[in-house]
Amino acid sequence: MKTRFSEINLIKELSSPRYHNLRQQFVARTFVNKALIFGPRHDDNLVYLVEKGQVRVYLAMEDREFTLSILNPGDIYSTHTSAYNSAMGDVRILTMDTMKFYSFMAEYPELSKIVIAVLGGILKQSFAIIDSLSFKDIRKRLADFILFQTDQCTADETGMVTVSLGLTMEQIAGIVGSTRQTVSTILNDMIRDGILQKTERGVLLIPDLEKLGKYR
Amino acid sequence: MKTRFSEINLIKELSSPRYHNLRQQFVARTFVNKALIFGPRHDDNLVYLVEKGQVRVYLAMEDREFTLSILNPGDIYSTHTSAYNSAMGDVRILTMDTMKFYSFMAEYPELSKIVIAVLGGILKQSFAIIDSLSFKDIRKRLADFILFQTDQCTADETGMVTVSLGLTMEQIAGIVGSTRQTVSTILNDMIRDGILQKTERGVLLIPDLEKLGKYR
Repeated sequence: MKTRFSEINLIKELSSPRYHNLRQQFVARTFVNKALIFGPRHDDNLVYLVEKGQVRVYLAMEDREFTLSILNPGDIYSTHTSAYNSAMGDVRILTMDTMKFYSFMAEYPELSKIVIAVLGGILKQSFAIIDSLSFKDIRKRLADFILFQTDQCTADETGMVTVSLGLTMEQIAGIVGSTRQTVSTILNDMIRDGILQKTERGVLLIPDLEKLGKYR
Repeated sequence: MKTRFSEINLIKELSSPRYHNLRQQFVARTFVNKALIFGPRHDDNLVYLVEKGQVRVYLAMEDREFTLSILNPGDIYSTHTSAYNSAMGDVRILTMDTMKFYSFMAEYPELSKIVIAVLGGILKQSFAIIDSLSFKDIRKRLADFILFQTDQCTADETGMVTVSLGLTMEQIAGIVGSTRQTVSTILNDMIRDGILQKTERGVLLIPDLEKLGKYR
């Protein structure tokens, strides 16, 4: 994540006299590739600055992981969330007690800008994950419905199946229990993902039935 | 959301001379109860400060809404996200161009603290929503499995169904395709929600089969 509205390169500037007080308070820690830097809700309430390498911030649920951000040198994040933080390559971070860090924010306003940029990026990604999870049921129902319609169809020599739905978007939406707008969005996603190809009105080409069956 | 690590009451302080420059740049707007203040990705890139009333920040997907935050007077948020912002009661907000607002953050570091506190709260809530959506499939499978087990059972005069699973958590986890830890968490959630009651080992009481069938 680039610190979009912050122009400073904090890692480069950190050695300058202006940052002497701040630098003094940081404690450096190093991690090897793939090491867990902090798990969810780490006991110590710390803020950390990535000095070297990249840190992957992600949520782990059941057997799935959702990447929230790839932090780069100069990015700042916190240990006190329900996210995992793990090293991508050899990583060196500079840690500081959160309250101490906050007291420095008045003196160095650029720190706040970095924090806000990182949080904003993670928030955007979180919204995208919520969006994707919310539509999962509808995507599955729509894929199942199209698959059901191919029952009477045979594949050509390349495995391509042609199915004529003969239904409007409104009618399909009614069948899968969604809205015209959502069905249209998901069909476009399927076309973009190569699951479907569209020819004329209401006619779909399906390159791989198995792929369609697994679509979520 | 309380601005937890920011002690200032920005609305009260805003009339003091110290905030003269900032106050001058705000543009006030009022909204009646339930009015949409800003939709997702509003054209103008604005920051707003809640002056009066409350603002509900939420994501709307399909036919569902996920509340991310209830903003109170003194809270600061942005128009440039995929969230909806709507008025709870009569609302008065003070808006400012985002870039202009950022330029004030060096002069008034307390603004950053409010922004970070609000973003942090919304992020926490987003993680909770992702958590809930991720486990939805497993919750449904577990509810369906318990329901299936009640097939041979009859209800007592109060409608209470007693079912003896005779399975360990590991075995149930294997059946629904999850982990012992997750199954245990969901069963406890179900008990907390009044969907199930637990008596002895492996025996469950179900007050309302229909409620169990709808559990997600």
